[in-house]
Amino acid sequence: MAKSSPKKVEARLLKGFQDYLPGDLLPRLPLIRRIEEIFVRYGFSPIETPILEHLDVLLGAGGENANKELFRLETPEEEEVGMRFDLTVPFSRVVAQYPDKIKTPFRRYAIGPVFRADKPGPGRFRQFTQLDADIAGSPVIGTDAEMIAIMAEVMKAAGVDEFNVLINNRKLIDALLEGNGISKLETQKHVLRVIDKLAKVGIDNIRRELGPGRIDDSGDPIPGVELDEAVIEKILEFVAIEGDNRRVIVDNVEKSLGDAKGADTAITEMRDLADALEALGVDEAHAKFDPSLARGLDYYTGPVFEIVLPQAPQFGSVGGGGRYDGLVSRFSSQPMPCTGMSIGLDRLVAALTHLGLVEEKTASAQVLVVTLGAVPQAEVLGVARELRDAGIATEVFMASKKKMKMGTQLSHADHYGIPVAVILGEDEVANGQVSVKDLVKGKEDREDIDDRDEYRAAGKTGQETVSRADLLATVQSLLARG
Amino acid sequence: MAKSSPKKVEARLLKGFQDYLPGDLLPRLPLIRRIEEIFVRYGFSPIETPILEHLDVLLGAGGENANKELFRLETPEEEEVGMRFDLTVPFSRVVAQYPDKIKTPFRRYAIGPVFRADKPGPGRFRQFTQLDADIAGSPVIGTDAEMIAIMAEVMKAAGVDEFNVLINNRKLIDALLEGNGISKLETQKHVLRVIDKLAKVGIDNIRRELGPGRIDDSGDPIPGVELDEAVIEKILEFVAIEGDNRRVIVDNVEKSLGDAKGADTAITEMRDLADALEALGVDEAHAKFDPSLARGLDYYTGPVFEIVLPQAPQFGSVGGGGRYDGLVSRFSSQPMPCTGMSIGLDRLVAALTHLGLVEEKTASAQVLVVTLGAVPQAEVLGVARELRDAGIATEVFMASKKKMKMGTQLSHADHYGIPVAVILGEDEVANGQVSVKDLVKGKEDREDIDDRDEYRAAGKTGQETVSRADLLATVQSLLARG
Repeated sequence: MAKSSPKKVEARLLKGFQDYLPGDLLPRLPLIRRIEEIFVRYGFSPIETPILEHLDVLLGAGGENANKELFRLETPEEEEVGMRFDLTVPFSRVVAQYPDKIKTPFRRYAIGPVFRADKPGPGRFRQFTQLDADIAGSPVIGTDAEMIAIMAEVMKAAGVDEFNVLINNRKLIDALLEGNGISKLETQKHVLRVIDKLAKVGIDNIRRELGPGRIDDSGDPIPGVELDEAVIEKILEFVAIEGDNRRVIVDNVEKSLGDAKGADTAITEMRDLADALEALGVDEAHAKFDPSLARGLDYYTGPVFEIVLPQAPQFGSVGGGGRYDGLVSRFSSQPMPCTGMSIGLDRLVAALTHLGLVEEKTASAQVLVVTLGAVPQAEVLGVARELRDAGIATEVFMASKKKMKMGTQLSHADHYGIPVAVILGEDEVANGQVSVKDLVKGKEDREDIDDRDEYRAAGKTGQETVSRADLLATVQSLLARG
Repeated sequence: MAKSSPKKVEARLLKGFQDYLPGDLLPRLPLIRRIEEIFVRYGFSPIETPILEHLDVLLGAGGENANKELFRLETPEEEEVGMRFDLTVPFSRVVAQYPDKIKTPFRRYAIGPVFRADKPGPGRFRQFTQLDADIAGSPVIGTDAEMIAIMAEVMKAAGVDEFNVLINNRKLIDALLEGNGISKLETQKHVLRVIDKLAKVGIDNIRRELGPGRIDDSGDPIPGVELDEAVIEKILEFVAIEGDNRRVIVDNVEKSLGDAKGADTAITEMRDLADALEALGVDEAHAKFDPSLARGLDYYTGPVFEIVLPQAPQFGSVGGGGRYDGLVSRFSSQPMPCTGMSIGLDRLVAALTHLGLVEEKTASAQVLVVTLGAVPQAEVLGVARELRDAGIATEVFMASKKKMKMGTQLSHADHYGIPVAVILGEDEVANGQVSVKDLVKGKEDREDIDDRDEYRAAGKTGQETVSRADLLATVQSLLARG
């Protein structure tokens, strides 16, 4: 009854958004499962919050940039609404909203899409998936260490050998800035934003941005923080601090900060963090202290961390996090120290693909059931039923008559990389038989052939005709051979 | 550095939206997995599309009601955008957009949230999760049968014994209406909408709505279709058709339709469907033909189906679907017959909860590590590490000093239903030991006690102190006991 209008709509995506076809998604799903399994092992429970939140819940929680990038809309009741830009702000709302159900310390994980209306570009999307783990209600630095341990486990589970969790502490930077007479909050934030760009634009540009500013590659002026030369050198000296291991770096940082206000607390936190990381088995090769790490978001108040992949630096950070002791107090006067981490699934998968760590797979089906001639549908569906009941992912090729040629059906299996075909021809059915074809072997064999007759004969390579009763066992043994 | 503004934001949800806390989500996740596993066994591959689509992709695809209920917004480039209201329309876009990658017949499943700005009410939400499976590019009725078989498998996997997949065919209703001189598309749609309300409002109200209209319970007038008395009786006779089994019902429908235009094709489809359902093992008790089934959405063109749970009728349909041969042609001149089904996760879980088929669980953690006195953090984290490495979901209780009382820590485990506590006291650590407490047994024992001293003594029930080296084995044997 539904009649379509004659004017066609163009089938297209919004700029900055992605469709995940099976080839994109089949490698992602097992990765999500493995990460989720790590969250569970660390005692985190799942929470899901809506995509939409009251605008005031989101506005101001992530800083100016997050405000600017909000997708906004209205409900039918004309309430102002925003699409969540991360999973952390909704988590802070939930912790404040359900004090009876959520006893702290509370560990939650969440997996889902977030939305940012920033400039789309290669690898930059307006909808992307985050996998987050957070602990609310604990000021103990051991919880921050657990976050870092989880990030390291995620990398290992993803098959990455070479990765680095860079670790710093906002309190160290605060002490540095206060110690150098920079106490205005706006200026502090500006300095942080500049430091955050170090890896991207290099030390010389940072020097200019901390001073009078600079002109960027496109010719646009970038205003500077206008700090004194001496202060700039102090900051650059600080962010360049290195050391043989985490404890030595803390020692060096301590020397550099001297008796700056707040330095004591920050240094103690970093020493506790070093101890806890060791207890959790997070080795020096995979997690190091880096005084230059700033992190973009405004809400961090203590340890911050970020994963980088030295073999795939172009993908930037594939995950990160930190302590945010002030976020829940936007909603509640109850103090609620929190720490958390987030994996950016899209960037991680892009990096893993680049590193060759992603298995290619373009279809779920292990078996395609194909037919030749006038075979009763009941016969075909009965075969599929038997295979499915045995747990084998089975597709039945059912199409209009002109598509039911054997070649079309087998090239369908080829296109999707389905390894086994079960062939039901009129003859087979009449004889109580069925043919089973190993498409992987068949393809390999055909690739070695250059003679035409031989090629035709090879069409039957890897194909055997068995009694209908032996179907399941034959398919199972083919699949087991991998 | 982040300072929170003194004015508090109210931590609250948008009307019509839900937070899923662990108690809500922990039963949902395994159910999603089981349904996904069924989709895979039937040879469906996953696809994910964005939450946002160009407005013209969505507008008009689902009929007037869907249009009205669209959440709309604008991109920074001022493009008009809508939030998807189902997963079927985005699927139809994808099929039209990637003809090279997507060879048909193509089976895809999708799991994700959809958005409808309708009137929120009990059990009616503006964001809800759908689990969909669709086949594009097959006109064969066997694919519709597979959809129905999947729905039946989903119900069985959910533990439901008594369920009914009601099945009808839009072509039958078309033939009925054409046969009674109702050929105007708008009138046909109106009649469908009225029939769709049969289960909700009853036959007498339907009779009035097909005729002059009626006044509803709230006193609002509902305009009628204004059909002739005789035609109304024909329609009511048709929707009341019953029979002992699917084949008998088709016979009865055939008699009722006579030689109405299009009746032949519709009847043939239903006979094919009956054969295919039998071949797939979908028994009569769980899937029956019901000529009164209409389905709300405009885009259906052939078989339609819907799951109802006789023991939980108040939750309405927990899933449904049908054939929609015209939807892809909104985008493309290539004909693309499709069929599909959708499970409404929220309604299904609500119904399962009502039927007592949902296992209660409020935390992931199996073990809570608690401490007594000045125990080094490294010791505590080392214990957690060992348990996690063995695959045991382990939470470490780390909080501010005043929360580190044993009572507070154990009641935390109680609150979340964590079954085992590992206790690290100063004494234990000094002696190279650790205490393991069975919180399930401890609680059961305490419940039988009324004497106060006995109660105190029972505090240690189910608790044993073992050598640190025996920790893992002790915890494992406790958890194995269930």
